[in-house]
Amino acid sequence: VRAFGRQEACPEEITGVEWFRGNFNDPQAVNAAVESADIVIHAVSTTTPHTANLDKTGDIIANVVSTVHLLEACRNFDVQRIIFLSSGGTVYGIPSVVPTPESAETAPISAYGISKLSIEKYLALYHHLYGLEYRILRIANPFGPHQEYRRHRGVITAFLNDALNNKPVHIWGDGSIVRDYIYVDDLVNAIILSMTHQGKDRVFNIGSGEGRTLNELVAALERSLKRPVPVQYFETRATDVPCSILDISLAQEKLGWRPQVPFEQGLDRTIAWARGYNALARKKEGASRLRLAGE
Amino acid sequence: VRAFGRQEACPEEITGVEWFRGNFNDPQAVNAAVESADIVIHAVSTTTPHTANLDKTGDIIANVVSTVHLLEACRNFDVQRIIFLSSGGTVYGIPSVVPTPESAETAPISAYGISKLSIEKYLALYHHLYGLEYRILRIANPFGPHQEYRRHRGVITAFLNDALNNKPVHIWGDGSIVRDYIYVDDLVNAIILSMTHQGKDRVFNIGSGEGRTLNELVAALERSLKRPVPVQYFETRATDVPCSILDISLAQEKLGWRPQVPFEQGLDRTIAWARGYNALARKKEGASRLRLAGE
Repeated sequence: VRAFGRQEACPEEITGVEWFRGNFNDPQAVNAAVESADIVIHAVSTTTPHTANLDKTGDIIANVVSTVHLLEACRNFDVQRIIFLSSGGTVYGIPSVVPTPESAETAPISAYGISKLSIEKYLALYHHLYGLEYRILRIANPFGPHQEYRRHRGVITAFLNDALNNKPVHIWGDGSIVRDYIYVDDLVNAIILSMTHQGKDRVFNIGSGEGRTLNELVAALERSLKRPVPVQYFETRATDVPCSILDISLAQEKLGWRPQVPFEQGLDRTIAWARGYNALARKKEGASRLRLAGE
Repeated sequence: VRAFGRQEACPEEITGVEWFRGNFNDPQAVNAAVESADIVIHAVSTTTPHTANLDKTGDIIANVVSTVHLLEACRNFDVQRIIFLSSGGTVYGIPSVVPTPESAETAPISAYGISKLSIEKYLALYHHLYGLEYRILRIANPFGPHQEYRRHRGVITAFLNDALNNKPVHIWGDGSIVRDYIYVDDLVNAIILSMTHQGKDRVFNIGSGEGRTLNELVAALERSLKRPVPVQYFETRATDVPCSILDISLAQEKLGWRPQVPFEQGLDRTIAWARGYNALARKKEGASRLRLAGE
C-alpha cells in the first residue's frame, strides 16, 4: 500500500504504507506514485465547497486538469481500477428528490460540485476510450477520528474543536440546513468493497441515508458532552444547499454495503479522539511555550 | 453589434459590425470586447469532438477556463445575458432516448462533450451566485453557406468540398451513423429568440428533429448534384455516437421557434454557395500561382 500527499512524511497514525511526497499538480510526482500500482484511490482535493468559488479557474486547473493527468498516468501504467471520492453533497445541487438517488439531476450550485462532476465525466470517458475501470463514490459528509480541524472542512470536527476549546460554534444560516453524515469506518468499508465490485453500476452514493440539521448536530453534541454548546449564527452562504440526504439503496443492493456505526456512537468515538488530540495539542503547545521560555 | 475572433479583420461577408481581434484565452482581449455589451453570444470553441480527445487538458484550459474568464467579464461589466452555443450531438453521449430531450442523461463520450457540459454548469452557477441571465442552445449539426471547409468540422461542408473537387468523400464507419442537421438560418433565428426569451427554461435543443445517416447524406448530395459521389470508408471512431436526433419540442413550445428551411432546400443553397466559393478559391489559387510564377 502506498500513500501520496504533500506532507514531508506519512502521518504518524498510518503505518505500513510507502509514502510518496508530492504535489497533485506535478505529473512526475503523480507518475512515481502510480507506476506499478493495481488500484488507485483518488481522494485529493485542493479546494472546499467554499474556497473553490473564490478562484474558479484555479479550482479547475488544480483539480480537473490534475485529475486528467492522473487518469493519463493510470492509462499509461495499466492501472486496473481507479476509485474516485466524489461529493454527494454538491454534485446534485439543490436536489430534485430527497433522499437523492444517483440518477437524480446533477445541477451543482458550487464550483466545487462542478469540478467533481467534470472529473466523474472524465472517468467515464477514460473507461469508454481506453477501458480504464472505475468506481465513483458520491460521499455524504464524512466524520470521525483523524479528521483534523481546518477551516471550511468537516462541520462535526469544526463544532467539536470549538466546543472542546470553550468557544461558540459557528453556523451559517439559521441552522436548519440538513446534511447526511457518514462515519469514517463505514466510508472505508465502501471504498474496500468498490475495489473489487463487479457489475455495470459504477456510481454509488455513500451516506447514512439520514438527515440531521445543524441545530440537531449541536443538540447531539450537547448530549454527548453533557453540557451546553453555545452557537453563533452568521449569514447564509449561497453555495450551501438547504438539504442533502443521499438515497443509499443502490450501494446496499449492488455493493453489498451498509453503514454499521450509529451516528451517536460515531460521535462519541470522535469526541474521545478529539479530546486526546486536543490534550496532545495543548501538551505540544505547552512544550513549545516551555522551549520558547527557555530560549 | 460587435464580433470577436482571432482573424486580423472581420470576414468580408459580415458588414456593419465592430471587429474585436483577440485570442479567447486572453482575458484583456475578452474584456475589451465584453465591456458595455448588453448580450454576449458565446460561440467560441478551439477544439472539435475529434481534436479535444487528443489533448484533453489543453481543451479544458482553452475552453472551460477561458469561458469562466468570460463569465467573470460578463459579471464585472453587468452584461444582461449570455447565450452559449452548446453541443446537442455530444453532451448526451450515447443517448438514452431518441429523439433526445433536454432532460435526458448527459454522459458524454468525448472530451469535447465534457467541456461543453462543464461550461453549461458554470453558466448555471453564475446565474445562481450572481444573477447573470443565460440561455444554452444545444445545437445539432449546423450547415449552410459560409461554413468554410476545415478538417473535422461540418460533415456536409466536408462532403461538398470533396465532391466539388472530384474527390471521394470520407466516412468513418459504415455510414450508418445518424445525425440531426440544422440549417444556419434556422439556428440564427433560435439565437435571436433566445436573446429575449423569458421563462424558467434555459436549455434548448436546436435541431431539425429528424435523423439522416451519412449514407443518406451522400444520396441527397448525389440527387442535388445530379451525379454519383464516390465514398471511401474508414474505421469507426470511438467518439462518434451511433445516433443523435434532438427532441426539439421544448424550443417549439417555449421559445416559439421551429426550423423553417427543409433539408433539401438548405442543401441546395449550400451547394450554390460552395460552387461560388470553390470557383473563387480556384481563381485566388490561380492568381497566387501566377504571382509565384512571376516572382
